[in-house]
Amino acid sequence: MQVAPPGLKGLAVADTVLGAVRGNEGFYHYRQHDAAGLARSRTLEDVWTLQIDGALPPEVTAIDAGPLRTLPEEAAAVVDAASARLDDPMAALRVGLLSVSAQEGRGPLLDRTVSQRRDDALRLAAVAPTVLARHHRRRHGLEPIEPDPALSHTQDYLRMTTGARPGQTAARAVEQYLVATLDHGFNASTFTSRVVASTGADMAGSLVAAVGALSGPLHGGAPSRAMEMITEIGSPANAAPWVRARLAEGHKIMGFGHAVYRAADPRGVVLREAAESLGGDLVAKAAAIEEEILKVLAEWRPGNRIVTNVEYWAAVVLELAGLPRDMFTPTFAVSRTIGWSAHVLEQAEAGKILRPSARYVGPEPARH
Amino acid sequence: MQVAPPGLKGLAVADTVLGAVRGNEGFYHYRQHDAAGLARSRTLEDVWTLQIDGALPPEVTAIDAGPLRTLPEEAAAVVDAASARLDDPMAALRVGLLSVSAQEGRGPLLDRTVSQRRDDALRLAAVAPTVLARHHRRRHGLEPIEPDPALSHTQDYLRMTTGARPGQTAARAVEQYLVATLDHGFNASTFTSRVVASTGADMAGSLVAAVGALSGPLHGGAPSRAMEMITEIGSPANAAPWVRARLAEGHKIMGFGHAVYRAADPRGVVLREAAESLGGDLVAKAAAIEEEILKVLAEWRPGNRIVTNVEYWAAVVLELAGLPRDMFTPTFAVSRTIGWSAHVLEQAEAGKILRPSARYVGPEPARH
Repeated sequence: MQVAPPGLKGLAVADTVLGAVRGNEGFYHYRQHDAAGLARSRTLEDVWTLQIDGALPPEVTAIDAGPLRTLPEEAAAVVDAASARLDDPMAALRVGLLSVSAQEGRGPLLDRTVSQRRDDALRLAAVAPTVLARHHRRRHGLEPIEPDPALSHTQDYLRMTTGARPGQTAARAVEQYLVATLDHGFNASTFTSRVVASTGADMAGSLVAAVGALSGPLHGGAPSRAMEMITEIGSPANAAPWVRARLAEGHKIMGFGHAVYRAADPRGVVLREAAESLGGDLVAKAAAIEEEILKVLAEWRPGNRIVTNVEYWAAVVLELAGLPRDMFTPTFAVSRTIGWSAHVLEQAEAGKILRPSARYVGPEPARH
Repeated sequence: MQVAPPGLKGLAVADTVLGAVRGNEGFYHYRQHDAAGLARSRTLEDVWTLQIDGALPPEVTAIDAGPLRTLPEEAAAVVDAASARLDDPMAALRVGLLSVSAQEGRGPLLDRTVSQRRDDALRLAAVAPTVLARHHRRRHGLEPIEPDPALSHTQDYLRMTTGARPGQTAARAVEQYLVATLDHGFNASTFTSRVVASTGADMAGSLVAAVGALSGPLHGGAPSRAMEMITEIGSPANAAPWVRARLAEGHKIMGFGHAVYRAADPRGVVLREAAESLGGDLVAKAAAIEEEILKVLAEWRPGNRIVTNVEYWAAVVLELAGLPRDMFTPTFAVSRTIGWSAHVLEQAEAGKILRPSARYVGPEPARH
């Protein structure tokens, strides 16, 4: 029996044309395009089109997610029922995706045509912001805001959540966040979505499973923790002692360090630029605190360069855009759902069930 | 980069003490016990205890699932809202598991003690029949039936679903089905539950993801299709021409053939015994039809022995127990949820995130 490396680390379990991460080069890409470059220059809809349809507009027609954001009435009712009783937005997202899919009779991928599958991918990724915003407002006793198909996906998500139409700069910074976090190699949630899709199950079930994996603390990516840290540190002068005390207690420092990126996390770089485009006190303070933290980390592990990762500046961007902190991880789900949906389509094309083995290491069984 | 075999086939991705399948020997086991033997001699609660607590009663105290079957009121309300709008029991099961977990504040496995995780495992597997039965009755306009903690898990599931307390023989036959299908190596749904659990996510998210994988047509296991086939064939005399016509059209024959078992599927054997314990016309007819089908299959693939798999006799058992056909796959989920929950506990102990890689096979990316 062939035995996989622990945690499947470094083992290629599928072929993909959707992108990859080159940790040593501080580089990641979506299809054949520099992902950080796309975050700098393209809209979310453009990059969504790239991942689903294989090319950037105007080479192909850009996806118009506007009309796809509307929740069917019955699915909205299920989300409302869940909202009154489930505090967790990530649970509500799963309930919403299952409801929309059931309501619209979106069956197993195995029984769907290529065009129906694409339709499933677009529809279910498009309703994610609507479900999350609706759940957020209902559980805070606010009236839900219906989607406005004339707005961009990012603008509409911010508007449906906060209740106010965002300024252009803020919306663009969040859009850069969404583009930069849409996909990132073969992480645990992406892998989960593909294992489920490989059984021929439906798009909703594949995405719902991935939401579960994304909610795991070891998956990483909880920008709210980085924001809480910045708040707790308070002023740059307090950063070094605060970080030293945390390190001494054996804690990690949120927003710093990455398993793969050594020189720089390209997402951190582009999100710092996005935050700087917003300017203001918080950005200046975050930059000064970052500098102090990096100094302490360099002293602490002289041989091992620790970089600012995606979480740190993502936190600043989302905070300045007026998103509540309990919506930071759900916002990550808004972009990642798009990424997963492209992987699910690719897996459905591959068509082979992912069914590994385990090594039985218990006592020899007896026969009765 | 190390590349996994297609579909991860034969690759050991984890160590387990929970059991294994030995296809060539027509044998599978739960821990160190012959699984078919357990189905013959033990209650569901005994085997549930074995998988969760590591030993059979009376060596350890048997799990008492009775009090754990009760749905919290708010979770019941969410299931009711979903029932009125979602026709799919497998979607309702996922909504129910998420609701119970959220309602009871069952957080990420990473933050739970060993004893809290065990509690999560028992609770969420125990409510599965209650959620499914409630959804079934609500969507047929019937009043839900509250669980009765004095009954066995199997008896209570049948009672809550059908509305009548089952006869002892029927309940025991279904119990044998539930024991025989509780676990089976490292199939796609079990693997899914472990990938999600490896991120430190919660028990509910791990089980919900697995339900998604189980719903995939390539995962196999839809006894309702086997029952529909028996009904369609109608009489043993009609079996051979019916099967020949299906084979000629390139179809598989439901309930026959298995990827791993060559000599016999031990689950098929024990479920045939369970069906025979119920007796009657359907059992006699199914036996005669099985004989005809096996003859045709032996002629069709002389060198390749095709066995009766778990689906065929499972269908007869579930039909005779009075379960509606759209509850056959959900009934499978009732037992498999127990199996997954044990795997999730084992994965949570292992503690390492399952994060493989993919091989990028697209054009060389450009940097902007």
